[in-house]
Amino acid sequence: MDQISRLMKPRSVAVIGASADISKTAGRPVSYLLKHGFTGNIYPVNPKASEICGLPCYADIASLPDVPDVGIVLLGAERAHQAVRELAQRGTAAAIVLASGYTEVGEEGARRQKQLQEAAGKMRILGPNTIGLVNITDSIVLSASGALEMEHFPSGAVGVVSQSGGILGALLSRAAARGIGLSKLISTSNEVDLELADFIDWLVKDESTKVIALFVESARATERFRAAALRAAQAGKPIVAFKIGRSEAGAQAAVSHTGAMAGADAMYDALFKQVGVIRAKRFDDLLDIPAALATERRLKGKRVAILTSTGGAGTLVSDDLGVCGFETPAPDTQTAASLRALQTGDHAALDRNPIDVTLAGLKPELLRGAIRALQNSPTYDALVIIVGSSALAMPELMSNAIKSCLPESDKPVIAYVSPHAPHVAALLMQNGVPAFSSPESCSTALAAMLHTSQLQARKPAGGASISIALPDLPTGALDEEQAKRLFDAYGIDCAREQIVLNAQEAEMAAQTFGNRVALKVLSSDILHKSDVGGVAINLSSDTIGARLAEMKNVVKAKTGITAERFLVQEMVTGGTEMILGMHRDTLGTGIMLGMGGITAELFKDTAMRLLPATGGLSKAEAIEMAQELKTWPLLDGYRGRPKGDIDALATAVVAFSEMVAQLGDKLSEAEINPLFVLPDGQGVRAADGIAILEG
Amino acid sequence: MDQISRLMKPRSVAVIGASADISKTAGRPVSYLLKHGFTGNIYPVNPKASEICGLPCYADIASLPDVPDVGIVLLGAERAHQAVRELAQRGTAAAIVLASGYTEVGEEGARRQKQLQEAAGKMRILGPNTIGLVNITDSIVLSASGALEMEHFPSGAVGVVSQSGGILGALLSRAAARGIGLSKLISTSNEVDLELADFIDWLVKDESTKVIALFVESARATERFRAAALRAAQAGKPIVAFKIGRSEAGAQAAVSHTGAMAGADAMYDALFKQVGVIRAKRFDDLLDIPAALATERRLKGKRVAILTSTGGAGTLVSDDLGVCGFETPAPDTQTAASLRALQTGDHAALDRNPIDVTLAGLKPELLRGAIRALQNSPTYDALVIIVGSSALAMPELMSNAIKSCLPESDKPVIAYVSPHAPHVAALLMQNGVPAFSSPESCSTALAAMLHTSQLQARKPAGGASISIALPDLPTGALDEEQAKRLFDAYGIDCAREQIVLNAQEAEMAAQTFGNRVALKVLSSDILHKSDVGGVAINLSSDTIGARLAEMKNVVKAKTGITAERFLVQEMVTGGTEMILGMHRDTLGTGIMLGMGGITAELFKDTAMRLLPATGGLSKAEAIEMAQELKTWPLLDGYRGRPKGDIDALATAVVAFSEMVAQLGDKLSEAEINPLFVLPDGQGVRAADGIAILEG
Repeated sequence: MDQISRLMKPRSVAVIGASADISKTAGRPVSYLLKHGFTGNIYPVNPKASEICGLPCYADIASLPDVPDVGIVLLGAERAHQAVRELAQRGTAAAIVLASGYTEVGEEGARRQKQLQEAAGKMRILGPNTIGLVNITDSIVLSASGALEMEHFPSGAVGVVSQSGGILGALLSRAAARGIGLSKLISTSNEVDLELADFIDWLVKDESTKVIALFVESARATERFRAAALRAAQAGKPIVAFKIGRSEAGAQAAVSHTGAMAGADAMYDALFKQVGVIRAKRFDDLLDIPAALATERRLKGKRVAILTSTGGAGTLVSDDLGVCGFETPAPDTQTAASLRALQTGDHAALDRNPIDVTLAGLKPELLRGAIRALQNSPTYDALVIIVGSSALAMPELMSNAIKSCLPESDKPVIAYVSPHAPHVAALLMQNGVPAFSSPESCSTALAAMLHTSQLQARKPAGGASISIALPDLPTGALDEEQAKRLFDAYGIDCAREQIVLNAQEAEMAAQTFGNRVALKVLSSDILHKSDVGGVAINLSSDTIGARLAEMKNVVKAKTGITAERFLVQEMVTGGTEMILGMHRDTLGTGIMLGMGGITAELFKDTAMRLLPATGGLSKAEAIEMAQELKTWPLLDGYRGRPKGDIDALATAVVAFSEMVAQLGDKLSEAEINPLFVLPDGQGVRAADGIAILEG
Repeated sequence: MDQISRLMKPRSVAVIGASADISKTAGRPVSYLLKHGFTGNIYPVNPKASEICGLPCYADIASLPDVPDVGIVLLGAERAHQAVRELAQRGTAAAIVLASGYTEVGEEGARRQKQLQEAAGKMRILGPNTIGLVNITDSIVLSASGALEMEHFPSGAVGVVSQSGGILGALLSRAAARGIGLSKLISTSNEVDLELADFIDWLVKDESTKVIALFVESARATERFRAAALRAAQAGKPIVAFKIGRSEAGAQAAVSHTGAMAGADAMYDALFKQVGVIRAKRFDDLLDIPAALATERRLKGKRVAILTSTGGAGTLVSDDLGVCGFETPAPDTQTAASLRALQTGDHAALDRNPIDVTLAGLKPELLRGAIRALQNSPTYDALVIIVGSSALAMPELMSNAIKSCLPESDKPVIAYVSPHAPHVAALLMQNGVPAFSSPESCSTALAAMLHTSQLQARKPAGGASISIALPDLPTGALDEEQAKRLFDAYGIDCAREQIVLNAQEAEMAAQTFGNRVALKVLSSDILHKSDVGGVAINLSSDTIGARLAEMKNVVKAKTGITAERFLVQEMVTGGTEMILGMHRDTLGTGIMLGMGGITAELFKDTAMRLLPATGGLSKAEAIEMAQELKTWPLLDGYRGRPKGDIDALATAVVAFSEMVAQLGDKLSEAEINPLFVLPDGQGVRAADGIAILEG
């Protein structure tokens, strides 16, 4: 067995600093292990006790009769590292360090955490500052926290890993109340060693885990997380993540314009999207979505039947499904006939959806018949059953009726419980019918079930790394012409242009470029050319000379700089204006594609992807980015516009990403703005851009 | 007492069709009334019984010893109208008709409903197809539905009116479980007579009701609803509404482009906004928000203190507050000192927010001290208390500690309950501390508390009606020049233009307008000029002649129409492009202002207001509409752009709305697109538009 498996399913557990008083925190680990019938050896360690809960107590780690798989270290931060060292020396697989007082309290704590790491050597550490873990499948509690303990654990298929211990406890108590079954619960907290990625990898191999739920404060090792998440996707085990820190994005003032438009949280969005992690938008989604996915039913289409015995709630769910892009078509003739055959009288409105079978809640046979008819109907991809107050009188009967139909189809079946009836919802949940008390949760669950069916076909992304010889460029902020030479070296087409020093050269250049040109001041000391009067457009050889002289004066007046060089550039027309940029932060490097123009800027219409370790983005990813934009129709022939050259755009995005990947930290900033996407077949043109090269 | 008051607080109730078998639906009303100690007279009416539940039973309505305030009619749709007629003849204030089988089942039902209305005469009817009402304040149940009955009603300040009976029952059971107190519950359903507006008006006057919650399927009488909602706002009683039918918007293909951009649901949004109704976005909000507002605490700013004893949950709430635009500043020096004085040791991190007082959950005195310090702090406008698992051991102690602090400040205090602990949340709720189990609900509740504090200062909107003499125009679709003459008559500035018949006239006109003009084909048979090659821009007197000839050919080739008239129009430059339109549906007439240009169109960046009965919109409303646009910065000097002429824009919106109001059904469609807003002081220009006048 590997070390993490020994941690998750230990054959023996040493509890360092155990107390005989089970009302004390230090008394809990031994009592929890005993209570849930731990079948391995428990070794309490405490020099002051000879027996704890009827078990022999050892004076120190050296005296243990055997090498424990796990050591739960209950000592404070001052002494924990000593116990960790001794456990490591004995060959213990992993230590769980509960003490706080490490990196979370500043420098002194960070020093202690480093000491802990050194003491562990090759032994793994969970924590410090963790509340431990629970292997619910095997009823093993490795924790001193009341929040991770209960009389009966809700056993099931959802593995939960949380960077916050308090949240892990909240998720356990909420899941238990709702009948949502969990497999393993792990609090990683300070992550001096074991981290999210380690447990994702382990849960992917864990047979009892079908879905992985993550509460993320920050993903410390992006590449390990990415790799683990991709392995989970390949294994068909969806990951659902709730990530906090969304509103810090506003506070983190990014240096470049691109960064400001993207924000740090968008980097997580990009990462999650790239590796197929479903992002829980609301905290409740972090249980709702895994509860739905744990059924392993995947949604193959958007057509949902709503079976109800109460009008209002059926309409409520139907309305929200519509808002979320689902369809609720009326039953086909054959299905309506099957439904009609079930009952006499006019109780049922069978020509519409929600399908109202008023008496079904009271007659299980009728309910079964209706469910079967809808499951078998080619008109529907999924079924939502509305549980009204009429069903509350006999929840078991109703729940069993639904359960008995499940094996006959692999279509998703979920329930909406309209009155307050948590016991009914829990019963349904335990019977394999994800049950929700919010109409919006029904839509969210179905959307995740649909997303997951598409997910499994997905391939890991990431392009190749390349190595281009750099043109001869200075360090620091490049001027526009230099920046474009850099982009050009990577194969990005730029607008034709020429450096000129005076009016005469400008006139000749204007003629060369067809007498419709822009004139820009060229100086690496001027970052925002247009703010200082350094840009003029729509010029011809007739007008450019005078305009150059005027520009020289204005720029001088506004900046004090005597401009000596200018750029004459062909005007690019008929294209769609975009922005291509980058954003680096602790998570990694993001490539951002955004719609240009002042209106799109206000809407922050951007798409982001994180660079993989291997090199640049793939062309498929680049195309996905463009399609993700709300203004994608502008590139796709909206209202008779010509289609844009998407292939050339994707090629440019890939080239830009390869440049960012190859140059690494040497390139601290780069942005092409605007990048014109011309009509199909005509390519793209970088019309302006910035780049900063580090020395 | 007026009729609705007699319905809500009857002194006597006749139950027509009562059954002695209380297990039957018809047996319930009498038993419910008795069970909750109704102190008035109960008159069961049933020719086949002499006594029901110990009360004398009457053979018919004529035999009743007294005029009942309310008659609950339990008869089927075929006979209900007879009972209604007899009750009316006796002078009963109101009948509650429970039977279904009316408008909801088609034509035959509609006929029955009309019959019912005629039978009632001046007597009021609740229903038909209603489950009745409950006056919780006075423990009076007027219903035969188990969904509106419970052992103990949660008495409080929220009045609920629902157009769906099933939803009303769900809200009652959910509110009861959560400790949310209700005052009155009314199911209006088919609304043959009494409707939402009647009960809003009544609840505004009801002393025990502080907040009104509405479940709306469709507002049948817009003007009455508007007036009632405005009276509620003036009385300081907020209305919270959940409206279904949001996704029908997509299905309702509106004729004009404006309509398609706006959609029917946007009309409700507009109406709610105009009258100060808070729209519940999620179904849970329909209880969460009223629960918060029932405290009558209003939020005066955006700075929130988070007091926590568990790190993860505090961060979770803080993060969501940030996403929703709230601020969570660190304690000021004075507040930090007050907090520090409460305890020794380093348990508290007092230099940040969430304010972590780890032991507060276990020490009520400490908790009280911390709450007081934060309530009194000038740094905070509201307080969120995080309830962790440590508080679960002693919910009463904790809840009482918080409650005891409430009278010392009028700042909102709410709670987030992190573990599953509905009993703790309900206890807090009952003690006047709105408690939520979703972090997002905390943000939603605070946002509503903030919104409400602004609401009460609001004045009823609506401009004056005007009467302009119409220019001489044909009926049907107007051509562009005619449409603009119509707009001009109402004082909307249009781009200068001239009708021309040939190249020579076009050249002269081009010269008149400064040699930068547009040329458009002019024909009421051609609706989409640019689609058939009928628009050319940037022309001068040199080029316009040839272009006119070419246009004639292209239009002829594409449409078969020989164009005989053209419009030469000055090119409007330097303005911001907008759209001004209208949308009529069953709710009323909406005026829509949207940002123009193809990008804004993709984002559907529009604002809508419903015309009041009195006439057009007010100028203040028009300015609000512009400010509501996501692209408002484009008009407000974004990134060095010139500020737009907002005053002229508002004047144009008001003029357009007055035109729509005055012409009424005579004007079936009108749209100005584009409407250029020029820099401040330069006005607006309508550059193109359509209008359809009915005969």
